[in-house]
Amino acid sequence: MADLPKSVRIREVGPRDGFQNEPEIIATEDKIRLIDMLSETGLKRMEVTSFVRPDVIPQLADGPEVLAGIERRDGVSFSVLIPNMKGLEKALEHRDRFDEVSVFLSASETHNMKNVNRTVEESISGLEETIPVALEAGLRCEGVIATAFGCPYEGEVPVENVLTLAGRLRDAGCHEVGFGDTTGMANPVQVRRFFREARGRLDDVELTAHFHDTRGQGLANVLAALDEGIDSFESSFGELGGCPVPAGATGNVASEDVISMIGEMGIETGVDLRKLLEASAEAQRILGRPLGSHVLKAGPVDWQR
Amino acid sequence: MADLPKSVRIREVGPRDGFQNEPEIIATEDKIRLIDMLSETGLKRMEVTSFVRPDVIPQLADGPEVLAGIERRDGVSFSVLIPNMKGLEKALEHRDRFDEVSVFLSASETHNMKNVNRTVEESISGLEETIPVALEAGLRCEGVIATAFGCPYEGEVPVENVLTLAGRLRDAGCHEVGFGDTTGMANPVQVRRFFREARGRLDDVELTAHFHDTRGQGLANVLAALDEGIDSFESSFGELGGCPVPAGATGNVASEDVISMIGEMGIETGVDLRKLLEASAEAQRILGRPLGSHVLKAGPVDWQR
Repeated sequence: MADLPKSVRIREVGPRDGFQNEPEIIATEDKIRLIDMLSETGLKRMEVTSFVRPDVIPQLADGPEVLAGIERRDGVSFSVLIPNMKGLEKALEHRDRFDEVSVFLSASETHNMKNVNRTVEESISGLEETIPVALEAGLRCEGVIATAFGCPYEGEVPVENVLTLAGRLRDAGCHEVGFGDTTGMANPVQVRRFFREARGRLDDVELTAHFHDTRGQGLANVLAALDEGIDSFESSFGELGGCPVPAGATGNVASEDVISMIGEMGIETGVDLRKLLEASAEAQRILGRPLGSHVLKAGPVDWQR
Repeated sequence: MADLPKSVRIREVGPRDGFQNEPEIIATEDKIRLIDMLSETGLKRMEVTSFVRPDVIPQLADGPEVLAGIERRDGVSFSVLIPNMKGLEKALEHRDRFDEVSVFLSASETHNMKNVNRTVEESISGLEETIPVALEAGLRCEGVIATAFGCPYEGEVPVENVLTLAGRLRDAGCHEVGFGDTTGMANPVQVRRFFREARGRLDDVELTAHFHDTRGQGLANVLAALDEGIDSFESSFGELGGCPVPAGATGNVASEDVISMIGEMGIETGVDLRKLLEASAEAQRILGRPLGSHVLKAGPVDWQR
């Protein structure tokens, strides 16, 4: 294993991944207030909305209004999720309001087909045309590969397939490739092997890990990735979102749980945990139900000291 | 780090630690049925009750009836928790119904005083007299050290204090020393350092790790301990029990979450995860509320395959 990194970068994805998965649509003004609170925590990256079809995902139909309303703060990079060229074109109408795009596909055929109704090859070919257009617009670009550690329909997903897609995203110009454990199937041994191989083959692009706490193993997988030198993570405040299937299962690992553990390990996150917990508490108040985040319930470790 | 162990031993503590922390007293016949179900899962160690003052812990006042009613199965070792000589004497009236005792104290003065109204020195001295009596009765003996990774009242607990107590428990005859992260304050860097030191100094006694998922880091700490060669763990089915402070915070890491992750990592646990989940589902039915266990909600990884 590599030495643990000295510091990590965390992309907050709750405003997109979390808000998208709420059955009740969150009011635009509440979204804006929450994003502004998150911008004040020290988080340097945030996925704030997406440009997908509003009839498919009405929860994020207010993307333009959210982008227009949120405060731009120095040092905080906003990204939007786009599925394809059409999404990118819509997003570019608001170009001055964000800094990065995330494009995505699944590594497994069945999941990709169910998610975007395309084969994996159709998706990656489309993204290879879309990414250069984003780059020409001066945007930073992250390519996200879902079901990178297992597919709920197909089971094991070959590492070779995932890394080949990652290489094509890199070759198309992505600055960063993210690997999503979409339904929480990864285990730490697998994560270590995966990132050892990935770092060996993709040393010229930022590698980002995105884990879910579906089976309680979210932070164990974060630890496994840190052990292999991974220093970029995605997570969601309050443990919002993240494809919780079946109902009751948890999704994305909570940002405050990641930041609490990593901070206690002596690794710099740059995030003020108390401010982040205030944002999660506000989301909990708005949503009117207890959120899954552990540290939101228990409080930070040093509140006991 | 050491190589990961090939197999691990898991002591199920739910019937003591879990049942003790339920506000409503669980019916004796329900306890017996649940313990019998757990005995059929392949778990080889189970803490089934304690002999403490029934006016203090009425939830476990039926210890003798539970011991009399549960089926003794070859290869399953039952233990009872005892606080002191008086508890041991009571337990010995049922000597043929169990195989091991667990004795306990806290590593921090304040927690020990609040828990058993004694100084740490009074507790360890008392246990040094109690342990030999248990050994004379042919019992295997585990010494458990609570607040081994931090105290909610005092904060940091010096490793030296913990390991000195562990050495005294070993010298008094304990076959095994358990280290409890009583309120979920441990982080993986701390856990690795702790067990590296502990293994160096206590190579002639079994070392057991007992983690809580209070801040979502339970399985990350299990991984950290595995990395240092620790192959004995305690956990609680359904995520029952474990001093959840404040209310809503989770306690013991769930046995099924531990067994799911460790099994997925290719390490032998000997436990049939499906049978264990049946026991947790039955506990959930009896208690009438959703339990905290992740795998109970989401199902095993290979149910998706």
